[in-house]
Amino acid sequence: MNDFKDLILKRESCRNYSEKRVDTALILQCVEAARLSPSACNSQPWKYYIVNDEENAKKVRQCVQPDGANKFTDKCPAFAIVTEQTATLKPHVAARVHSQKWAENDIGLSVAHYCLQAADLGLGTCIIGMVEEDKMRELLGINDKIRLVIATGYSADENPREKKRKALEEMCEILK
Amino acid sequence: MNDFKDLILKRESCRNYSEKRVDTALILQCVEAARLSPSACNSQPWKYYIVNDEENAKKVRQCVQPDGANKFTDKCPAFAIVTEQTATLKPHVAARVHSQKWAENDIGLSVAHYCLQAADLGLGTCIIGMVEEDKMRELLGINDKIRLVIATGYSADENPREKKRKALEEMCEILK
Repeated sequence: MNDFKDLILKRESCRNYSEKRVDTALILQCVEAARLSPSACNSQPWKYYIVNDEENAKKVRQCVQPDGANKFTDKCPAFAIVTEQTATLKPHVAARVHSQKWAENDIGLSVAHYCLQAADLGLGTCIIGMVEEDKMRELLGINDKIRLVIATGYSADENPREKKRKALEEMCEILK
Repeated sequence: MNDFKDLILKRESCRNYSEKRVDTALILQCVEAARLSPSACNSQPWKYYIVNDEENAKKVRQCVQPDGANKFTDKCPAFAIVTEQTATLKPHVAARVHSQKWAENDIGLSVAHYCLQAADLGLGTCIIGMVEEDKMRELLGINDKIRLVIATGYSADENPREKKRKALEEMCEILK
């Protein structure tokens, strides 16, 4: 990529995956990007579980399709399960706030790094929040608090869609 | 930039700003990157307030230095105040979860886009969570729920620091 703006336009939520399998080494590059993201007091309140085999992928799919939602995951070969860990804040901060005050925000920062790195490597991703957490913990033997699942694979679409967002004027105000 | 990995290493939490003022147009490029980030059901539960004048910057500093913390902001010329908005989820999702279930995560995604775009433009940023929210709402006339402040300016440091993080093996597991 030449410019971060191009990468932002390339990254999109992919709901149409090709059959092509993903090299685990590429997924680990995405995790590496997530690892290097900032967090409150550098607390890094996350752990990523990677699923890149069909047997475990089937289990993931059973947990992200409540009421038949997210059927597109049937064709997605790999998943990152993002869990929340206890955040160890600096003492003067911990004296003021609950340890997990910024954990979800921090996980968001980290997941953005993962998805942008994936886009730069030519991979498609979709962040899935609708997860049957208890069922996933049981099926996959995870003891942590599951926050999100990132579907990861190669897109079967040729060009990124046009992004539909609120206008800049609607989501931004310059204070005078 | 040539590679997203380079940008990740360039982005760091800047706590040493030069006196140089930032062109508001550059800050708006960072907001534009934030605007294009993904969110649950494309709900975009964020609004950014930009402060790039000394009078308002002084007010921001009064609200992000509890007990003398974050003194580095004295030299930072500009700030983005990130607020949370009501998330309008798709009906089948809204039937299952509270509207704000993923709002903090979504804000994290958006803030990562802002900070990475800033780094690509040669700007330094620091995400500040310790904010006296009520005081800031009053001093700056903001009615929304304030989540974070992003200090924004030019770094006075020459080279990025080495990143200290948990090892990949500690924050990532490949399920078999």
